[in-house]
Amino acid sequence: TDLPAEATRDISAALAGLLADAFALYLKTKNFHWHMSGPHFRDYHLLLDEQSDQIFAMTDPIAERARKIGGTTLRSISHISRLQRIADNDAEYVHPQDMLAELREDNMRLTAAMRQAHNTCDEYHDVATASLLEVWIDETERRTWFLYEASRVPPGRE
Amino acid sequence: TDLPAEATRDISAALAGLLADAFALYLKTKNFHWHMSGPHFRDYHLLLDEQSDQIFAMTDPIAERARKIGGTTLRSISHISRLQRIADNDAEYVHPQDMLAELREDNMRLTAAMRQAHNTCDEYHDVATASLLEVWIDETERRTWFLYEASRVPPGRE
Amino acid sequence: TDLPAEATRDISAALAGLLADAFALYLKTKNFHWHMSGPHFRDYHLLLDEQSDQIFAMTDPIAERARKIGGTTLRSISHISRLQRIADNDAEYVHPQDMLAELREDNMRLTAAMRQAHNTCDEYHDVATASLLEVWIDETERRTWFLYEASRVPPGRE
Amino acid sequence: TDLPAEATRDISAALAGLLADAFALYLKTKNFHWHMSGPHFRDYHLLLDEQSDQIFAMTDPIAERARKIGGTTLRSISHISRLQRIADNDAEYVHPQDMLAELREDNMRLTAAMRQAHNTCDEYHDVATASLLEVWIDETERRTWFLYEASRVPPGRE
Amino acid sequence: TDLPAEATRDISAALAGLLADAFALYLKTKNFHWHMSGPHFRDYHLLLDEQSDQIFAMTDPIAERARKIGGTTLRSISHISRLQRIADNDAEYVHPQDMLAELREDNMRLTAAMRQAHNTCDEYHDVATASLLEVWIDETERRTWFLYEASRVPPGRE
Amino acid sequence: TDLPAEATRDISAALAGLLADAFALYLKTKNFHWHMSGPHFRDYHLLLDEQSDQIFAMTDPIAERARKIGGTTLRSISHISRLQRIADNDAEYVHPQDMLAELREDNMRLTAAMRQAHNTCDEYHDVATASLLEVWIDETERRTWFLYEASRVPPGRE
Amino acid sequence: TDLPAEATRDISAALAGLLADAFALYLKTKNFHWHMSGPHFRDYHLLLDEQSDQIFAMTDPIAERARKIGGTTLRSISHISRLQRIADNDAEYVHPQDMLAELREDNMRLTAAMRQAHNTCDEYHDVATASLLEVWIDETERRTWFLYEASRVPPGRE
Amino acid sequence: TDLPAEATRDISAALAGLLADAFALYLKTKNFHWHMSGPHFRDYHLLLDEQSDQIFAMTDPIAERARKIGGTTLRSISHISRLQRIADNDAEYVHPQDMLAELREDNMRLTAAMRQAHNTCDEYHDVATASLLEVWIDETERRTWFLYEASRVPPGRE
Amino acid sequence: TDLPAEATRDISAALAGLLADAFALYLKTKNFHWHMSGPHFRDYHLLLDEQSDQIFAMTDPIAERARKIGGTTLRSISHISRLQRIADNDAEYVHPQDMLAELREDNMRLTAAMRQAHNTCDEYHDVATASLLEVWIDETERRTWFLYEASRVPPGRE
Amino acid sequence: TDLPAEATRDISAALAGLLADAFALYLKTKNFHWHMSGPHFRDYHLLLDEQSDQIFAMTDPIAERARKIGGTTLRSISHISRLQRIADNDAEYVHPQDMLAELREDNMRLTAAMRQAHNTCDEYHDVATASLLEVWIDETERRTWFLYEASRVPPGRE
Amino acid sequence: TDLPAEATRDISAALAGLLADAFALYLKTKNFHWHMSGPHFRDYHLLLDEQSDQIFAMTDPIAERARKIGGTTLRSISHISRLQRIADNDAEYVHPQDMLAELREDNMRLTAAMRQAHNTCDEYHDVATASLLEVWIDETERRTWFLYEASRVPPGRE
Amino acid sequence: TDLPAEATRDISAALAGLLADAFALYLKTKNFHWHMSGPHFRDYHLLLDEQSDQIFAMTDPIAERARKIGGTTLRSISHISRLQRIADNDAEYVHPQDMLAELREDNMRLTAAMRQAHNTCDEYHDVATASLLEVWIDETERRTWFLYEASRVPPGRE
Repeated sequence: TDLPAEATRDISAALAGLLADAFALYLKTKNFHWHMSGPHFRDYHLLLDEQSDQIFAMTDPIAERARKIGGTTLRSISHISRLQRIADNDAEYVHPQDMLAELREDNMRLTAAMRQAHNTCDEYHDVATASLLEVWIDETERRTWFLYEASRVPPGRE
Repeated sequence: TDLPAEATRDISAALAGLLADAFALYLKTKNFHWHMSGPHFRDYHLLLDEQSDQIFAMTDPIAERARKIGGTTLRSISHISRLQRIADNDAEYVHPQDMLAELREDNMRLTAAMRQAHNTCDEYHDVATASLLEVWIDETERRTWFLYEASRVPPGRE
Repeated sequence: TDLPAEATRDISAALAGLLADAFALYLKTKNFHWHMSGPHFRDYHLLLDEQSDQIFAMTDPIAERARKIGGTTLRSISHISRLQRIADNDAEYVHPQDMLAELREDNMRLTAAMRQAHNTCDEYHDVATASLLEVWIDETERRTWFLYEASRVPPGRE
Repeated sequence: TDLPAEATRDISAALAGLLADAFALYLKTKNFHWHMSGPHFRDYHLLLDEQSDQIFAMTDPIAERARKIGGTTLRSISHISRLQRIADNDAEYVHPQDMLAELREDNMRLTAAMRQAHNTCDEYHDVATASLLEVWIDETERRTWFLYEASRVPPGRE
Repeated sequence: TDLPAEATRDISAALAGLLADAFALYLKTKNFHWHMSGPHFRDYHLLLDEQSDQIFAMTDPIAERARKIGGTTLRSISHISRLQRIADNDAEYVHPQDMLAELREDNMRLTAAMRQAHNTCDEYHDVATASLLEVWIDETERRTWFLYEASRVPPGRE
Repeated sequence: TDLPAEATRDISAALAGLLADAFALYLKTKNFHWHMSGPHFRDYHLLLDEQSDQIFAMTDPIAERARKIGGTTLRSISHISRLQRIADNDAEYVHPQDMLAELREDNMRLTAAMRQAHNTCDEYHDVATASLLEVWIDETERRTWFLYEASRVPPGRE
Repeated sequence: TDLPAEATRDISAALAGLLADAFALYLKTKNFHWHMSGPHFRDYHLLLDEQSDQIFAMTDPIAERARKIGGTTLRSISHISRLQRIADNDAEYVHPQDMLAELREDNMRLTAAMRQAHNTCDEYHDVATASLLEVWIDETERRTWFLYEASRVPPGRE
Repeated sequence: TDLPAEATRDISAALAGLLADAFALYLKTKNFHWHMSGPHFRDYHLLLDEQSDQIFAMTDPIAERARKIGGTTLRSISHISRLQRIADNDAEYVHPQDMLAELREDNMRLTAAMRQAHNTCDEYHDVATASLLEVWIDETERRTWFLYEASRVPPGRE
Repeated sequence: TDLPAEATRDISAALAGLLADAFALYLKTKNFHWHMSGPHFRDYHLLLDEQSDQIFAMTDPIAERARKIGGTTLRSISHISRLQRIADNDAEYVHPQDMLAELREDNMRLTAAMRQAHNTCDEYHDVATASLLEVWIDETERRTWFLYEASRVPPGRE
Repeated sequence: TDLPAEATRDISAALAGLLADAFALYLKTKNFHWHMSGPHFRDYHLLLDEQSDQIFAMTDPIAERARKIGGTTLRSISHISRLQRIADNDAEYVHPQDMLAELREDNMRLTAAMRQAHNTCDEYHDVATASLLEVWIDETERRTWFLYEASRVPPGRE
Repeated sequence: TDLPAEATRDISAALAGLLADAFALYLKTKNFHWHMSGPHFRDYHLLLDEQSDQIFAMTDPIAERARKIGGTTLRSISHISRLQRIADNDAEYVHPQDMLAELREDNMRLTAAMRQAHNTCDEYHDVATASLLEVWIDETERRTWFLYEASRVPPGRE
Repeated sequence: TDLPAEATRDISAALAGLLADAFALYLKTKNFHWHMSGPHFRDYHLLLDEQSDQIFAMTDPIAERARKIGGTTLRSISHISRLQRIADNDAEYVHPQDMLAELREDNMRLTAAMRQAHNTCDEYHDVATASLLEVWIDETERRTWFLYEASRVPPGRE
């Protein structure tokens, strides 16, 4: 690449943080997918499966993008632990509605982190990384929308 | 075609009405698909997406059928407005169960309109248009069935 | 095959019983799929459709397995009636939650019957039939899990 | 649907009878598929497999059609037994040519039953059910043709 | 089939006539496809290829339908010659616009012949043959529409 | 989303306008697709079909994008009528070249409206909406190019 | 093409003859496919269907090859009649084994005609036509092999 | 692998024997496929083609399994000759029914050899090799069933 | 399921351990895939990509199997950290041959852990979990074989 | 290969010339594809796209064929310039009909060059290169035919 | 388009330069793909094939983008020669490692040229061209990464 | 076929020899595929797998070609042994580079044998067999090229 060394350093760092968050959110989404219960079982089980697939699909491109600009990326489970900003949830039982609400929060947090990384890219004119982030922000906002509407309770009747 | 001129005139007119209704119902179904909320969000969001796809798939064949028998068909958004018999619903918030109930009524209305168009075709022995209508009546009755059963509330327990 | 005659006799008998159960469970699952109602209509309608497809997919391999080891298999609807251990349910109305609960019980019963058939195969070293049963037990336990979690009611809020 | 209540009652009843026949014929065709023998083994084994697939493919649409017009449908194996008009055949050995001949008769019987159901639909102007029956009559006549020609013995030479 | 002998005789005869016409029209359409010329070469070459494919796709089902109801069908090129009502055109050069116009006429003639065959089927209540004809009439009217519009010359400007 | 409320308000409004234009342009393109005539019939019929498909493919993503950032979107045919800036054309006959010229103008107008919406997104740093618009601008410019070159008349010879 | 005029004349003529034969053989193979009977019904019905598909697949390339070298090709059913060397068979009943034998002879005759056409191409160094003929000769010899072995009667036992 | 050295030695040896048998049976099945004759030509030609495909599909996994547990496998045609237990048959003419009978015996022999190899795996707890053998035993028993039923002669009539 | 409570407890525990190892090995394989270098770059990059895909494909089935027998499974990144037995490697630079060697060791360790879990399943007659493990052991031994042979240095010449 | 050294030399040289011509013709065809205009815009734009795809598809096989017989092939854009016999056309505006005419000439020139290369192959008995050339000659003659007929002007009427 | 004339002029010029570079780099990558040698032959042969495919896939969109904004683009091989900035390499033998190193440099040069073109687009607010360039920059950086790592020699051991 | 008896005899004999060589080369290529080792393990393992697939794909067409011209073909493993001209290699260890070199020699030998068989076909004007050989010669020369370049050692640096 023809980007300066600081660009490589700062953008790689931003991408490593996003990658750690993506893996942490992937595992939490899977956790809730596996431990779902209640009358909406199949519907939410599928919803979280689709969302986890979409999150997982981001991971390899994030890591490879860091490599393409000459940086390095994540190396291990413990490396994820050190960098992740999405909190773990090891509770034995989580109410289905709480699962959706918690993931909604986490996805909103991820959107903010991505927008911040986009700023870093803008600063260094790394238009290619920025372009990838634009797609992922759109996807993350879609997941947030679904989780938001699914956790709204309609007035009265049901 | 070898059909008489009145056949072309009357059947084209019937098809134009159905086409306007189909577009109006398509947009309402999409409206509810986009603005759905509540615990059944994903399930109903998908249901209405499938139904809107099925309704949309009717539009081109309806229009082309009118052309095949030598008639003309719809030309614009305002043309739809003038012909549609399915009422618009621009309310800011509609309760999910009310969405299903309203669409059920609209689909039943569409079935009746199609059966009437079928009679017109029978009168002029336009067996090809009739044959297409038979498939669309079946599909419309299926959408009605789904919307009907989804809005029945089981006694007591849930 | 090089299995002894008693192996053919006993394993074919076990497979015929499983096949009758599979057809009976298939039809009951379809029955509930067709007569489902309530706000979860589409979700449960699809769930039972997937489950009935999976049950149906077992039937031909069960029958052909009996033929491969030199035995015979089911011949008619009345033959099913005589052998089936899954009870029929001809009620006019069944509450959606009761549908799920009844199928959960039936699938657990089928798991137990399959595990017993597996023992018969072990006895005669019929490793090929045993291998097929292992896959079907896994599938049946998955159906049971889904039906179980879908009928658990989360505390309080919904 | 906008059909009168008697239409729903009579057409559902006709469809339930056809569904029971379809399941009974499906199982008999499978029975002969599984227990076929002789030099034509593979050829007839495949023929009956194709035919059983085609028969099975009718079952869900028949049942759903009854639901779409507001009726109910079959519920269990014993329900099939009570309604089926295709006779069971539990014989230990059936000659291959007799298998073909018996199925040919059964398919002809099914054609007649379908044509009768078509008349019921015509009476109530249920054009959608009628349209589905037209396809199934064509298929049943094709199965009959194949079974008929396959059981004709050419003069002399073979 | 359970249709009377006269039905078999009359409907088979009608189908044989249609089949001869279909083959004759197929070959003429191919003839023009092969010998097309002028600035619209590729466009018309493709148009006639699509139309010939659609015509050819009718031939096997027409023949098999006659067999399904117990009749026989065409046997040779000379058999086609004797029955065809679509005239041959062996001219060395045909103007592209004349090609389209001639085929439009031929397709209109075929529509009329099909509608007549449909009447024969109605008479004998052969609903399955009638149902197939409805689809082919629709397709033939579509080919006529395309050929008609393509040979209209817009006023003045081009 | 983490965008401020004015961003949601202004971008949703911009998207609703574009969506109304997209539906209006879709219907006009279809109108001309259905009522095309002349020696170029098939060629232009296909061209407008491809263009209408491409326009239609934008509609759902435009609507869903508004939802993802917390806004609402179109609700009905009359809602389109109120917002659309693409003029309807209900003329009985339009010359083929005029059809192309009118659509070219409409597509250019749409490009300008999209570029304006892009500015709004830039203002609020909504990089995800901006990214989608970039693709649609490219597509709209491609449609314009095709319509432009197809309506240029080469000097003299043809 | 850069071939001399006599090459175009002679090779086009040879191809027209082959095309007429191909259509005549196609129709005879279909004739026997439609009117097959006896215990081998399905097997031979399928065999002749595959063979007729393969023969039909040759027709367009033969005709287009004549066009590519600047010649013309077949124009109508009667044109086929005048050029075909494969004899028609309009008999009401043909014994299955006689069907296979007759087609075997016809295919052998076609092989000889193709090899002769190949010589004509060699003479004029038309390597491209020759190359196509090589593939079709191989296919025709394969059809002959199948028809030959299928009509050999094994000694004694069956 | 973590299996002991004797396991590698004994299981590799068993797999090499099975691989030699598989290649020998593959070639004999192909031999009969190529040299088949008689009225059942196409049917048996296809049957043996399917069976040879299934046998061939075993060969690479058998060889690779030996490599996975640290052993070696077959190296040449002569290596096959030394290890194969399926006898060659180079006769100029074999009656179709004798072909089926001989292959049935060979497949039964292969089943026995596989079951013995399964015992060797059980002894060393090599559960992965055992699992593969279970699938191949099932397939081999299926081939045996087909060959057995196809060579049974039904009483009297044909 | 019909397994006793201790079976659920012990098998779930064994599966949770395997799942943690699978995720840890997945990430290490990806780490080496991302940070590979040297003349074999593309070859090893692809090798590790294929292996990581295969490892990842195990994770959902392992977790779901625990759920099917009534147990729970992993919940977070830190949960993986607590259970994993595959060591992390966060070194800045690892020689390509050392990467292959380290992964070979890790895969062998995983094989042993799986065989131990298989014993636990045998103890409780959980044949379905055992059957899944057999496939994964085979895959893990294949990965080990590839890594082993790829790190053997041939004598002398290269 | 077992061909003599002069064969490698002469055939490689012939192939290099053809490859240069293919690239030059590819670029000219693309040039006209990109800069097409007039009422036939879409039709000719597509025609030239198909032709350029077909030309491009020849390039890798031509180059690899030279390598297979031990020769070398083209190395750069300037290498093409030195060897190409198809003239460049950098004119700002070319009339659509002139575009077709010029390409027709170029394709005829390419046919002649290929036939000459075929003679070289015949001389050295390089049957494999010859066989590939036969396919490309056929394709080139097809492109010429299309370009020829598309540039013929029908008498009078249009 | 609604861009000013200078935008069309400057962006088209930038795109023409990139297109010439893309063709030149395509041919050089193919050159090395065809003339590769050494123990890594297949691996590098495939690597360069993938890279040349990716480079070629850019060419049509670059040219069409210039057309969409109203500009013109490349016309011939000599036009490429005049504009290309990637140097040709016609050497008889190039060491495999030198091939990779030279292409790495060329790709880096292309990245810089693209980023410069991106600036031109930004200046004129041509967001659609900019968006396409972002994808191609990412791809070019990926090719550079692969070529860079593949040409790093690991210390000591191999 | 219409070829003379000596043609059948001589060409069948030539094909049988080629078939034996093809099977022998197939097994040797597989042998080296299975027993490959060293840093290039995966790359060569895949190379030989592709080559063995290509060789295997020739076998059925060679055998069927002999049958199509009325000859017979191979019957057993020992029949291969008697006819093969490719030597077996049962060595315990073969150096990777020696594997490639040996296969290169074998493929060159096969090319020569095929060219000789082509002469035999030319003599009898069996153009169809000749045509098939041309494709296989090209493939065999390609395998030789790959094996040759992969075993060339670049000077000095690696």
